[in-house]
Amino acid sequence: MDEQSQRNFSAEEKQLLEEILAHRRDVRGNRFLKTPISQEAIDTIIEAALAAPSVGFSQPWEFVIIRNQKTKQAVKQTFSEETARAASQFADEKQQEYIRLKLEGILESPINMAVFYKPKEGPVLGQTSMPNMGKYSVVCAIQNMWLMARSLNIGMGWVSILDPEKVKQVLKAPKENQLIGYLCFGYTDMFYNQPELELKKWDRKKLQEEVVIEEKYK
Amino acid sequence: MDEQSQRNFSAEEKQLLEEILAHRRDVRGNRFLKTPISQEAIDTIIEAALAAPSVGFSQPWEFVIIRNQKTKQAVKQTFSEETARAASQFADEKQQEYIRLKLEGILESPINMAVFYKPKEGPVLGQTSMPNMGKYSVVCAIQNMWLMARSLNIGMGWVSILDPEKVKQVLKAPKENQLIGYLCFGYTDMFYNQPELELKKWDRKKLQEEVVIEEKYK
Repeated sequence: MDEQSQRNFSAEEKQLLEEILAHRRDVRGNRFLKTPISQEAIDTIIEAALAAPSVGFSQPWEFVIIRNQKTKQAVKQTFSEETARAASQFADEKQQEYIRLKLEGILESPINMAVFYKPKEGPVLGQTSMPNMGKYSVVCAIQNMWLMARSLNIGMGWVSILDPEKVKQVLKAPKENQLIGYLCFGYTDMFYNQPELELKKWDRKKLQEEVVIEEKYK
Repeated sequence: MDEQSQRNFSAEEKQLLEEILAHRRDVRGNRFLKTPISQEAIDTIIEAALAAPSVGFSQPWEFVIIRNQKTKQAVKQTFSEETARAASQFADEKQQEYIRLKLEGILESPINMAVFYKPKEGPVLGQTSMPNMGKYSVVCAIQNMWLMARSLNIGMGWVSILDPEKVKQVLKAPKENQLIGYLCFGYTDMFYNQPELELKKWDRKKLQEEVVIEEKYK
């Protein structure tokens, strides 16, 4: 077998990746359509996850595909509890704004997916000094799926206002599994041109000069 | 301003993304060339990071660009200490294999980059129930950079066999910053067709059927 890849990408191909990155959005229930997602599209999205880097090639991921409305309702229940608890942490104006935002699309999206980190027994190459590396591998897989979904014109939303232990209970997940992301997938009526929280002026986009440091901190 | 993006990606465009995902590799020092990387390419890679999703649009990232060989040598020192400590954790054959592997390219790559998570004061939308979400946002930015670098035909390696506190000392990083990834960027003599650890039979690639669960665990 030829071990070498001679694939060189062109400037136009690089530009297309820039476009996919720029048009990827976090999609919530106000934008999802009921249009079903084909099994082929789901498989393509999962293949993208399996192409992600993982520390020591450990591939420490599991993906639970949820279609049943009852399962979704049970997950939505923990969202409702956690978001009520969260709102009270924001002060004044921000609290009013928080309450007005639609922050998930659990029931509106045809496919939900719980993504777990499954720790391996014994040492993992590359994870001996930074124990979070396995979880970070799972996040890389999620980002690959996000981009692949967008290139299929499918929206994805990442819901994090959940009690991970309650989601595990609903899905009967093994004790050692750790929930990394709870994702909603669906076609959309449109994608926003900018992050929704930027459009709604929740916060502004940072510039390179604010976050890039040359060589060392002063 | 038009809030809507009507960008629909075609099947050919989706296929190109699949190719970029498939040809992305973790690159180590045995493959890096000394060829300099232009400032334009570095800026393009950082722009890709800034297009990543972040919890509550918090953009909790900082990127330190390292070019000085002395800084790299100080980081290499913590790699050497940590990898010696790590090797002893693997049993017998795996230990011999571990020692033979080249696991970083700190000195060989023209650009190193330390990527930090910088916690925000006060509550972050979406991070109130899952406190790791800010760190996961930084990982999404790293994965975006990895893909962008590959589309520029630049290799990236993620070095995790480091003491994060020692890297912070070397870079005089603020106390609250947390090291998420230490990255090496450089042109390469070639990219492998498969993950190096798969080629070297350290482990085998998992199949969809091994990691996909329908609806709930049994």
